Amino acid sequence: MISNHFARRVQSTKSALCAKFKFEPLNSTTYIKNILKEVKAENYENKEICVNGWINQKPTKLKKDLFQTKIRDNNGSVLTVIGDKAQLKGIQVEDCLQIKGSLRLRSNKQFSAENLEDFEFKLSNLIILNKVDSPVPSYLSTLESPDLIQEQYRFLQLRSSKYANILQTRSKLKNLIRNYLENELNFTEVETPLLFKSTPEGAQEYLVQYEENVANKSNLYYALPQSPQQFKQMLMGSGVSKYYQFAKCFRNETLRKDRQPEFTQLDLEIAFGTGKEVMKVVGDVVNKSWRNYNGKAKPLYSIGLDGKLAVIENESSIKRFDYADVMTRFGSDKPDLRIPIKLINMKEFGAKAGLTNPIFSNFEIIHLPNMIKSEEEAVLLKKWVLNKEHYLDQSRKPIVHVMLKEDDVTFWNEAFAKIANIESPKLVTKSLNLKVGDVIIGSDRESDSFVFENPTPLGKIRNILYQSEEPFLNNYLKENFPKIDTDIVSWVVNFPLFSPKVNATNKRVLGYPNYDTGLVESTHHPFTMCHLAHLPLLAKQIENEVNLRELLFIKSQHYDLIINGIEVGGGSTRIHDYKLQSQIFAKFLKIDVEKQKELFGHLLTVFKMGCPPHSGFAIGWDRFLSIILNEKTIKEVIAFPKNNRGFDVLFGAPSKIEKGD
Amino acid sequence: MISNHFARRVQSTKSALCAKFKFEPLNSTTYIKNILKEVKAENYENKEICVNGWINQKPTKLKKDLFQTKIRDNNGSVLTVIGDKAQLKGIQVEDCLQIKGSLRLRSNKQFSAENLEDFEFKLSNLIILNKVDSPVPSYLSTLESPDLIQEQYRFLQLRSSKYANILQTRSKLKNLIRNYLENELNFTEVETPLLFKSTPEGAQEYLVQYEENVANKSNLYYALPQSPQQFKQMLMGSGVSKYYQFAKCFRNETLRKDRQPEFTQLDLEIAFGTGKEVMKVVGDVVNKSWRNYNGKAKPLYSIGLDGKLAVIENESSIKRFDYADVMTRFGSDKPDLRIPIKLINMKEFGAKAGLTNPIFSNFEIIHLPNMIKSEEEAVLLKKWVLNKEHYLDQSRKPIVHVMLKEDDVTFWNEAFAKIANIESPKLVTKSLNLKVGDVIIGSDRESDSFVFENPTPLGKIRNILYQSEEPFLNNYLKENFPKIDTDIVSWVVNFPLFSPKVNATNKRVLGYPNYDTGLVESTHHPFTMCHLAHLPLLAKQIENEVNLRELLFIKSQHYDLIINGIEVGGGSTRIHDYKLQSQIFAKFLKIDVEKQKELFGHLLTVFKMGCPPHSGFAIGWDRFLSIILNEKTIKEVIAFPKNNRGFDVLFGAPSKIEKGD
Repeated sequence: MISNHFARRVQSTKSALCAKFKFEPLNSTTYIKNILKEVKAENYENKEICVNGWINQKPTKLKKDLFQTKIRDNNGSVLTVIGDKAQLKGIQVEDCLQIKGSLRLRSNKQFSAENLEDFEFKLSNLIILNKVDSPVPSYLSTLESPDLIQEQYRFLQLRSSKYANILQTRSKLKNLIRNYLENELNFTEVETPLLFKSTPEGAQEYLVQYEENVANKSNLYYALPQSPQQFKQMLMGSGVSKYYQFAKCFRNETLRKDRQPEFTQLDLEIAFGTGKEVMKVVGDVVNKSWRNYNGKAKPLYSIGLDGKLAVIENESSIKRFDYADVMTRFGSDKPDLRIPIKLINMKEFGAKAGLTNPIFSNFEIIHLPNMIKSEEEAVLLKKWVLNKEHYLDQSRKPIVHVMLKEDDVTFWNEAFAKIANIESPKLVTKSLNLKVGDVIIGSDRESDSFVFENPTPLGKIRNILYQSEEPFLNNYLKENFPKIDTDIVSWVVNFPLFSPKVNATNKRVLGYPNYDTGLVESTHHPFTMCHLAHLPLLAKQIENEVNLRELLFIKSQHYDLIINGIEVGGGSTRIHDYKLQSQIFAKFLKIDVEKQKELFGHLLTVFKMGCPPHSGFAIGWDRFLSIILNEKTIKEVIAFPKNNRGFDVLFGAPSKIEKGD
Repeated sequence: MISNHFARRVQSTKSALCAKFKFEPLNSTTYIKNILKEVKAENYENKEICVNGWINQKPTKLKKDLFQTKIRDNNGSVLTVIGDKAQLKGIQVEDCLQIKGSLRLRSNKQFSAENLEDFEFKLSNLIILNKVDSPVPSYLSTLESPDLIQEQYRFLQLRSSKYANILQTRSKLKNLIRNYLENELNFTEVETPLLFKSTPEGAQEYLVQYEENVANKSNLYYALPQSPQQFKQMLMGSGVSKYYQFAKCFRNETLRKDRQPEFTQLDLEIAFGTGKEVMKVVGDVVNKSWRNYNGKAKPLYSIGLDGKLAVIENESSIKRFDYADVMTRFGSDKPDLRIPIKLINMKEFGAKAGLTNPIFSNFEIIHLPNMIKSEEEAVLLKKWVLNKEHYLDQSRKPIVHVMLKEDDVTFWNEAFAKIANIESPKLVTKSLNLKVGDVIIGSDRESDSFVFENPTPLGKIRNILYQSEEPFLNNYLKENFPKIDTDIVSWVVNFPLFSPKVNATNKRVLGYPNYDTGLVESTHHPFTMCHLAHLPLLAKQIENEVNLRELLFIKSQHYDLIINGIEVGGGSTRIHDYKLQSQIFAKFLKIDVEKQKELFGHLLTVFKMGCPPHSGFAIGWDRFLSIILNEKTIKEVIAFPKNNRGFDVLFGAPSKIEKGD
């Protein structure tokens, strides 16, 4: 008896189980469009079509025994489906199925293979390949859900057309660039190791245990690389002529805004290559990317010789800014050129700052005419601009001076008395045409050719003003200082080779950068080459007692690519000379020969053995893609991102592992 | 005075330093060939040519004030260079330089732009871009150096034409395959995370500390993935239709032969895809790779319908073997089909094994006629075949019976008395035509349809015989059983879904696999789907008490790709049904619901929410490339491999990091 009973159950299991494993290969709306293009307009109704996809909307009753639902394919495209009760009974959102049937044109529509929304799909057959067994999908489809839920059900999000498009664009764009680099420019893709050696900036590293056992005995660790920098320089010394790679990089700094613990970088390096060559390759990659895949379908702009915006045609039409220029004009080495707000240096009006900190001897302001109409608005403005969230790095706040009455205009300079003496405030009042209702935001900064604080307080304010959700502020900016509605690219070059060293433990004192007297650090990394014209000056510093002012004057062959105020990538011509590299370590970076060997011995060795001159670059791929696709965070362009605590909620990483003893 | 002194030194530094930073962009022999093709044969001598490269050979004196040297470019190509003493004085091996000059045809040679070795390069100008400051390069160039030195100076190795070709082929082949998958087949490349969750097979994982500090407090760890298996299945549930990726994978098992802690795998998965579809894609990828990049310039063979070797034209001409078939015929699920040695099952002669272990009831032999001419050879043969190095896994040795005299022939069966009774040994003697000088190697194994020991002792011996360096053995095999000199590919399919579970701590008893009575494990991984025809049988096992014999009979939809006896890749149709997956975990793999949720909750969740049926595959990319390029180890096709202790000697990873407390 029992065996008979089981036999029946097995039998029913058989048909139920097997059904969901029998299906035809993937068909999508793209495939339907192709079919429609092939058959004649009058014949399409006789064509049986098979589609795989997911239920996008619960079936609704049209009339007796006629139901309508929507099916979504793997491109996120949606098709209207008509069927009877028997076919659509019990169908739920996100059920995965295969349907067969034919297309009918809706009334009053013209036949076009492109507009599938003008058709209805008349069901002849439906197979459920996987029935949803959870309330979550329908819950999510009707609710704007909180972040945590979204993270947990990322796979449901990814089924939409938005993310299908993002993933496909990411893939296609990489392929476009690979073909350009490999086939047109003869680059070789080389995969470099991910189990790397720990480097001195260990705080940002992820450490990997060498042993299998958690109860690690030997204290041996690999580190995941922050970039393949040292590997690619080694490849140059290995005879590779042009290297590239979409490289996985790791930074243990998840708490910083919109960072991911692991990210992708388009990394390249050219042996016997100059900065000029590298910039040409990078500029062309950027231009090609925009022209093929910019979601906003707008070309990329830069600033022409006449100072006006112009569509870039190739790399040579990308504006090159000097570091000193952008620091004084925009208070940042990655200025958002879409923002029209200007910084005014008050030096021309005889202003002298440096009252609190003598190095910070320049006084600069932002003038916002006719901004404030009430006390209330003044409070709101200050609340936003001086919000402590913007100053978590302990940097100093600027002074916001709102002129609500005539005295505020006449004696405007008194608001800034703590940081600057203004010789002739009235000249300023007249020259800038200051009036009641105007706002001046002011701060001190370092002198023009030596601005190392980055961004300066006002450089920061330029961006902060546009991040507010305060309606009066938004309206004011929209009317008076509207952000330019195009993507703008530029180079920043001529960085100082060294910067004053900021104290590692106390980075700020009274809001000012706390420089360790007389010490410097590499502005980018220690492998960056200086300008050839400055090489004699560098040699002088190496051989004599260091003159800090002269040392800081030396410019590097580093170049940054900036789009919309975001540093998309950077690169440089590197040092390939053993002696020069070693001297820079020893004399300026205070790394003695023993320590050099321990940390960078492999590079010094290859420099000693015929490493050619070389230059390279890296583009932050996730960031770059998010700008092209107009997405606010890099999370949007990564299939399975971690959250800002470094957790992958969907897969449950990291997880707890008990240590032995 | 001092400043004058310094000024002079600075001056000299200036010219010396600057010279090596001034150069023209990369030019190689390819570029020279192109120039030669452009200019007319009579004009080439007037053409100034610029080449960057390395000194390949110390200058030698030809006659008074005329020296000859060789320069090697970034493709590893070598050019003969002629110059005077002033130009070539002090030039050393591996000096990196730029030369200018023109080409002269050597006497008695015909002009051809392709044969650069027929030309001499007449120096007009030479710039040393990096002078070698180490004795190592010239030391290495004159010496076959030991492994450690080679590892330490990998970059010098990579400058040779051999490695330039390997790196370039790796890059080009990947690009070929990417274009095929993306442009012809509409695959989407998706990057999946490398900071993954630790999984139960933790012993093979690399653990990554979540915290920055080595003195880890929270016990939170990521694990580096052994493959993107779970990510790609999640992508199928995320609406991606065809996924692929050259994925970085990690296995903490460096002590195994020719393994690397990190390696690359061509990973792919197709939603609504069947095994047939996947196999077609993989077969075509393999065929295309061989046709474009096989270093030996020979096509790939498989076994045709007539049982004979035939060049494969497409995937459908790749032979499909049943698992049971290869295990009984070749004693391995990755048989090297180039080896003509056959295993003879003695069942037909009435042999009965199972004397030591009743499960191992079959007796099989290898017959090597006319092999041994002396006692000495007998000893050498046994020494090699029975060498304990081959049995480090504690597996049992076969019995080697050398027939040196008539009695050894007549009573041959006595040599195997411990493992098998042979009903009519004389029938065997006659049938196999046994003679003095013949060798029989014999062992017992499991019965034909249930061979799980893999390889069997004789399956192992087939390969071991060819790995010896013993001249008499080599000669014998070369004359009597020569290995076929072509690359041979095949599929192995119809694997059992489950295998008897081998005891985790004592894997072998008396050389036999030590199965845990009544327990099974997934033959591949727990996500593998069974044959649809066997689904009712599986359902029966789920619902009733398990019948081990029936359970082990169930075949999976797994498929392995084998080339030259090496498993190049494997794949399967996966389970996409929540209930079936959960039941398999619970009933057969003894993972209760709580534990399932902890380990695989993310996959079970997506299975519950409309995950489509899907099938996929992974090719071990390094291994695949090493076969195509005819390299013996995967180290050869990796730019910076680790050694077999997992150390990167060049970069010095891993390194010691002291733990805080």
